[in-house]
Formats: sequence, C-alpha cells, structure tokens
Amino acid sequence: MTTPVLQARAADLLKAYGARRWKIATAESCTGGHVIALLTDIAGSSAVVERGFVTYSNEAKSELIGVPAELIAAHGAVSEPVARAMSEGALVHSRADVAVGITGIAGPGGGTAAKPVGLVHFALSVKGRPTFALERRYGDLGREAVRRSAVEDALGLLEKALAD
Amino acid sequence: MTTPVLQARAADLLKAYGARRWKIATAESCTGGHVIALLTDIAGSSAVVERGFVTYSNEAKSELIGVPAELIAAHGAVSEPVARAMSEGALVHSRADVAVGITGIAGPGGGTAAKPVGLVHFALSVKGRPTFALERRYGDLGREAVRRSAVEDALGLLEKALAD
Repeated sequence: MTTPVLQARAADLLKAYGARRWKIATAESCTGGHVIALLTDIAGSSAVVERGFVTYSNEAKSELIGVPAELIAAHGAVSEPVARAMSEGALVHSRADVAVGITGIAGPGGGTAAKPVGLVHFALSVKGRPTFALERRYGDLGREAVRRSAVEDALGLLEKALAD
Repeated sequence: MTTPVLQARAADLLKAYGARRWKIATAESCTGGHVIALLTDIAGSSAVVERGFVTYSNEAKSELIGVPAELIAAHGAVSEPVARAMSEGALVHSRADVAVGITGIAGPGGGTAAKPVGLVHFALSVKGRPTFALERRYGDLGREAVRRSAVEDALGLLEKALAD
C-alpha cells in the first residue's frame, strides 16, 4: 500500500509535527489502519503518533470515539457528519493535537447509487480550529486503489494542518 | 509490508472466522496498525474485523484497553505482562471473540541489553480460554523486517486460535 514517495512525505510530516510538538491521532474505517501504519513505518514516529482507532464496526465508532448512533442511523456510516464526528471524537478521546477521520466505501460491495464504491468522507480536526471536511469520489477503482487513494488524501489533510 | 502469501493467509483466516461467526480485535503497538490493515485488505473483512486499537503511547495502552500504568512501570511496555494485558483488554473493550496484542522494539533505537531491538511480545486471548503468550527475538533486522516478522507471527496466532 505504501511507496517511497508516500514514505518520504510521511517522514517530512512527522519531522514538522515533531518540531511543533504536535501529536497525531487517527480514526480509520475504510482505510483499516493503513494511515497509522504508514506513519509508524517511520523511525521515531512514537514522538508524534499518539494513538489510532480502527473503528471498523458502527459500535466501535460509537463506543471508542463517541460517534452518536443516531448520527450513523440518520446519515449512514459513510457521510460527512460521521467523518466529522470521527475526527472530533479522536481528538477528545486521545492526547493528540490533530486528528483525521476517514470513512468510505472501498468495495467491491456496499455501494449504492447515492453512495457508490469509491466514495470517501474525510475530516481533519486541529485543536482550537473548526473541523474541515473533504469528500472524494474516486470511482470504482478496485478496493486496493480506493484505499491507497484514501491514505494519500488523509496524509494530505495532515499536511494541510501544518500549512493553515 | 504485505505479500501475496500473507494476503492469501489473511483471506483463509477471515473465511474460517466468518464460518464460526468469530470476530477479531487487535491491540497493536510496534506493528502500528499493520495487522489490522492486512486483515482489512480482504474484501468482506467487516464481517469479522470488529475494531483495532493502535496503542502507540503508554497512555493509550492504559486509557483505551485498561493496561494498568503500574504494570507498564513495573515490567516496561515491551513485556509479557503488558502483551497479555493488551490482548485481554482488547477483548474486554470490544465485541470481539478473539484478540491479539503486540508490543515490541522495532528499532532502530530503543533497544537495551535485556530488551534488544527485535524483541516482540505477543498475546492471544480467546473468549473462555486462558491467554497464550509468545516471545520472539528476531534480532536487529531493521525496522521494516522486524515489523513484517511481527505481523506474520500475529497472523499465526490468529490462525492458532482456530486450531486449538
């Protein structure tokens, strides 16, 4: 799932976060741990990576990071409100300064007309700032490519937190 | 980090767990999410993979899965008691039937004479059975190889749960 380019971006990211003494938490659904795995591939990442939640089931989203079950019932697990609740919940339920939430439909099954395979909702929460949400529709590229694209965009959001 | 052989093993594992209606939780430290990432690479894994804890910091180990801070202080985060507390805590703090805990020293830094780089403690908890612990000393193979070896052994423990 990783590439030398992604690893170099992750290394740069961790260096910049380390310089600010910022810590990261992740709340991953469709990426299933690949974002935090990429970050922790880098030696010394323990100074920056605080914890990760792989909230694959709806119950995990509610029990671990406080995503209201009613929000999931109303909007679906793959939705902007749930992505926002994931990153905000990861921030509250960790000691991190920045958190990213990722929920999507990697496929091959699970797509509908309104929420097709390849739809991924992201959210970025930085302490003291409003949460930023991002929607991507990659199309039905295949499970691996959807997940790899989502990992790249999640990394992009963590980079964006530094630039803002 | 993954290979076609590992992916085939993960696919077989998920099929066997699915047939038993068993769910999996993971508590990863040194593998940083690679075990659950491998499992969730497989389509349909949401029927089996319930949640994952990437407890990279000591606080995460205590706050998310109830590893007593005194246990970490007494034995160190990389120790058999902490690995046991991780898999048992992952079982308690999830809806899974089987949980694996992994804590080790991937390097390049962090090793000592007693706990060198490449030391990894694993534990496997299955509902209603005593926890099984495993210690591996891979040697200083490099961070990536230590982590890859640990992912393979964690997968082996999840396979062992089926065989016992």
